[in-house]
Amino acid sequence: MPVYTAPVKDTLFLLNNVLKLDSYSNLPGFAEATPDMVQAILEQAASFTEEVVQPINQAGDEHGCTRHEDGSVTTPPGFKEAYDQFCEGGWGTLTAPAAYGGQGLPYVLGTAFEEYLISASLAFAMYPGLTHGAVAAIEVVGSEEQKQKYLPNMISGKWCGTMNLTEPHCGTDLGLIRTKAEPQADGTYKITGTKIFISAGEHDLAENIVHLVLAKMPASPDNVKGISLFIVPKFLVNEDGTLGERNAVSCGSIEKKMGIHGNSTCVLNYDGATGWLIGEKEKGLAAMFIMMNAARLGVGLQGLALSEVAYQNAAVYARERIQGRALTGPANPDAKADPIIVHPDVRRMLMDIRAFNEGARALALWAGLLVDLTSKAATEEDRQQADDLIGLLTPVIKGYFTDKGFENAVLAQQVFGGHGYIREHGMEQFVRDARIAQIYEGANGVQAMDLVGRKLARNGGRALQAFNKLIQEEIASAKGNEELKPLAESLERSLGHLQAATMWLMQNAMANPNNAGAAAYAYMHLAGLVSLGLMWLKISKASLEAIAAGNGDERYYRNKLVAARYFVDRHLPDTASLRRKVEAGAETVMALAAEDF
Amino acid sequence: MPVYTAPVKDTLFLLNNVLKLDSYSNLPGFAEATPDMVQAILEQAASFTEEVVQPINQAGDEHGCTRHEDGSVTTPPGFKEAYDQFCEGGWGTLTAPAAYGGQGLPYVLGTAFEEYLISASLAFAMYPGLTHGAVAAIEVVGSEEQKQKYLPNMISGKWCGTMNLTEPHCGTDLGLIRTKAEPQADGTYKITGTKIFISAGEHDLAENIVHLVLAKMPASPDNVKGISLFIVPKFLVNEDGTLGERNAVSCGSIEKKMGIHGNSTCVLNYDGATGWLIGEKEKGLAAMFIMMNAARLGVGLQGLALSEVAYQNAAVYARERIQGRALTGPANPDAKADPIIVHPDVRRMLMDIRAFNEGARALALWAGLLVDLTSKAATEEDRQQADDLIGLLTPVIKGYFTDKGFENAVLAQQVFGGHGYIREHGMEQFVRDARIAQIYEGANGVQAMDLVGRKLARNGGRALQAFNKLIQEEIASAKGNEELKPLAESLERSLGHLQAATMWLMQNAMANPNNAGAAAYAYMHLAGLVSLGLMWLKISKASLEAIAAGNGDERYYRNKLVAARYFVDRHLPDTASLRRKVEAGAETVMALAAEDF
Repeated sequence: MPVYTAPVKDTLFLLNNVLKLDSYSNLPGFAEATPDMVQAILEQAASFTEEVVQPINQAGDEHGCTRHEDGSVTTPPGFKEAYDQFCEGGWGTLTAPAAYGGQGLPYVLGTAFEEYLISASLAFAMYPGLTHGAVAAIEVVGSEEQKQKYLPNMISGKWCGTMNLTEPHCGTDLGLIRTKAEPQADGTYKITGTKIFISAGEHDLAENIVHLVLAKMPASPDNVKGISLFIVPKFLVNEDGTLGERNAVSCGSIEKKMGIHGNSTCVLNYDGATGWLIGEKEKGLAAMFIMMNAARLGVGLQGLALSEVAYQNAAVYARERIQGRALTGPANPDAKADPIIVHPDVRRMLMDIRAFNEGARALALWAGLLVDLTSKAATEEDRQQADDLIGLLTPVIKGYFTDKGFENAVLAQQVFGGHGYIREHGMEQFVRDARIAQIYEGANGVQAMDLVGRKLARNGGRALQAFNKLIQEEIASAKGNEELKPLAESLERSLGHLQAATMWLMQNAMANPNNAGAAAYAYMHLAGLVSLGLMWLKISKASLEAIAAGNGDERYYRNKLVAARYFVDRHLPDTASLRRKVEAGAETVMALAAEDF
Repeated sequence: MPVYTAPVKDTLFLLNNVLKLDSYSNLPGFAEATPDMVQAILEQAASFTEEVVQPINQAGDEHGCTRHEDGSVTTPPGFKEAYDQFCEGGWGTLTAPAAYGGQGLPYVLGTAFEEYLISASLAFAMYPGLTHGAVAAIEVVGSEEQKQKYLPNMISGKWCGTMNLTEPHCGTDLGLIRTKAEPQADGTYKITGTKIFISAGEHDLAENIVHLVLAKMPASPDNVKGISLFIVPKFLVNEDGTLGERNAVSCGSIEKKMGIHGNSTCVLNYDGATGWLIGEKEKGLAAMFIMMNAARLGVGLQGLALSEVAYQNAAVYARERIQGRALTGPANPDAKADPIIVHPDVRRMLMDIRAFNEGARALALWAGLLVDLTSKAATEEDRQQADDLIGLLTPVIKGYFTDKGFENAVLAQQVFGGHGYIREHGMEQFVRDARIAQIYEGANGVQAMDLVGRKLARNGGRALQAFNKLIQEEIASAKGNEELKPLAESLERSLGHLQAATMWLMQNAMANPNNAGAAAYAYMHLAGLVSLGLMWLKISKASLEAIAAGNGDERYYRNKLVAARYFVDRHLPDTASLRRKVEAGAETVMALAAEDF
């Protein structure tokens, strides 16, 4: 059975030494997040995720969810008990606003917790994860009445939430949706239509499920400009907050899918269900994007979290599995063979994963901090810059992290040899589970287009300029240090490739938009590598500082410096070839007639 | 339900125009393989695989194999009927020697058929595939009596075969095996032990199953030098060739695994089963490697075959799924949206797969031809060169093709968006099935070490020198042609990276073998890219010849030239970064203490 240990030490190092959380203590919510408090929360989070959530993950895959004839859905054994403990522990309230029962702690702490929760069980983490997205949307576009009515119970976890976008014939292109919302005399709407791929769409974990549903009113334009967002609770909520009658929304079936079997992915049928408009009429897509952006960061985190748990299990196996001899001579001459961790190619796989995980964790936490700063930073300029940067980084984190998360789960499975293909070891579950993150919340190709088609050009390229400047400053400061210099110079070369690729896009995408489309994916990966390079430079700097300060545990920091060099030597070189793929242009991509494929 | 169309036109183009099969008509078995005959066989192969095998593939995954209480195993619905048609059609006899009931046709034709069979159903193809490997071993190391006794029924398909290497505690390191072979007075051996991961280990397709089993005699050294190979039939075979009593080998369980559910992967228990030594005592590993080398080429083909069928389904979906608009303006202005094949990023995925498939098919068929030439070429020099080249290419084809096969199945699944994650579309089955090919018959890391640690150095590097020379000649001849020149120059740069990486290995692996181990995987991919580059140069040359000859169907050949440029622009650039990974050396790979992972 797979193991999991939450990487609390790493998270603390990143929060304290790399991101220097204490320098933000003047901002709202940060004062409470003292180093001691943060450590205590993370240690509790570790216990909860390791002891309560991780043990149900494999059985969740094996049993899956069960839909009964009446349309009700039972989650796998242990999920309900674990969810009750999630609520009792107040884990849903961590970063939620105090006005609705939250603890108001920094978002970045929620990011740290979320990573652990997903590593322990993605399928389980999705239930509160979807709720979290729905809360975010109601918080921003809901009326005060709607907030009072729904948020406290959703934040506590008593109720769950969902996002309803996709229909059988459309997912990415939401302008095509057919679900109808007919206005009623009492101000409500009758919602009718079929939604598919609704994660956590129906289940037995919570008393109520608050569906946020995209639909079109009869008089609205039949395209993206005609979409509105509606709140459609499973049980109507009475004036006094108690639950009323069952709404006309039901689970038609559960999808049979590749992984995340523990999460109920539902076809939801709306048969004249009662819904309430949330936010402005015909501004549903914008409202949904509030959820989507939070959700996309969360999905990016799934890539990291699955990569981490897969890594941990592969590392244990590599230390324990006895097979073959070290190339340089027996490591255990008294035994008949050595543990496979002596083999350079096994270490290559482990180091590949590790060089991603530790850099990606830094980037994920920085992104969490940026989310805080978008609303809490002291000056408008700082808030704007945080908003620019998080807008730029969101598609990179979603797309790059989930591609790497899957790739790394596959690498970790490979360490197990034939045993990795067998279900009982749990490695193939990580692969099947990790796969979905590249697809949902906007397939990674859509993320790439969001980055190249929207985020780069927005506000005259202000976000990328800020990002470039940050990196250049970090490089300039690092060059003065002998140990950091090679790393800084490598990152400088990679940044040069990113800048050249950007320049190429500026010069060629206007003339032919297909040049942007054909380049987008490679550009997204290039941006991901440069972003991680920046993180490794920061980590290395913080490690050298810690060594110089004689904090003890020098080996821990030296290992960071090794992983940084590994990243520079073996991941950053790809930036050169990615640039060439960007510059290859659209011609050969678009040349074939559709019928010749 | 997934579709499949055997790429007969492509195979014929490669055999006739690229490999110029007719130039070998003076060699044994090739005279019969006239272009008309080859076309007729491939068309029959297409009908059989498309109409009989492909339709059972998805149900095979859904149902899997069933082990009954008595240890017998039932294959999924339709497998027995399809297997009977396989035997009736004589598909197992295609390339087998006439002396034992085979048709004696060139091996390269078998390669073409094998690709189609695997595309139609990997799980099904493995049953005859394993038999094929066992036949190869008996053919080479068996006594004439053993050949007469087993080969005709195995070649016809009446009996099946298996390979028994792996045990619970060891796979790659066979020196550790514990299965015992105790000599009996009558010259037989009593085989006792447990073998795991035995593909097609027990089933209901054939009357008998001939297990080839690695075991150690009591007096033999307890390491690789003490391993002998034994024939252990499920039913003993009487003198007259009829079946005798049931042997003491039984299926203890069927593994629950990630994919290839239609193939029964068994734990086989040998409880004093009667076995016969095959080949020389204590030379079992060498004998097994005869099977392994054939099997490794076959597994490489699995990468191509799954990539092909996944591609075909993604292409159909991309043409039919209506979603979004072309970046350059509506392609179907009268409809509400365009088919997703208008999107450059969708085409990028399809072209990525295609650029591999068409090049890899050429390389696979060339490899098949080389196998023919190792025994059939007219001169000793030609036979030796073919043997050198196939030895060098086998780990590249196994490792690189199966990595790309999996990667491409994932890309093809991605084209389907959320629907790719749902079982009914069959795309996630291709991913799960393709995954095993990277693991079995020597995990790909083992292939990389075989390439770098054995094949490069063998006979003073003769194989690589021959390979380099072939490529250089092709480049030199192509440079004279304006249309081929850019392709030739790109390949020359990539060959330069391969040569530099080889030089680095020569200079650094002796001093520290870990440098070879740390570089091996990147080197294998580098060699794979250069090999495919050579194929694309040959394909391009043949396409231009066909256009010049006015063969008609110019569009088909022009599309080849587009795919060749796509490969050069978007795949070959990776050779530069792979070289850098080779040259990065072992230091950061080996630096961490085992307990720090």
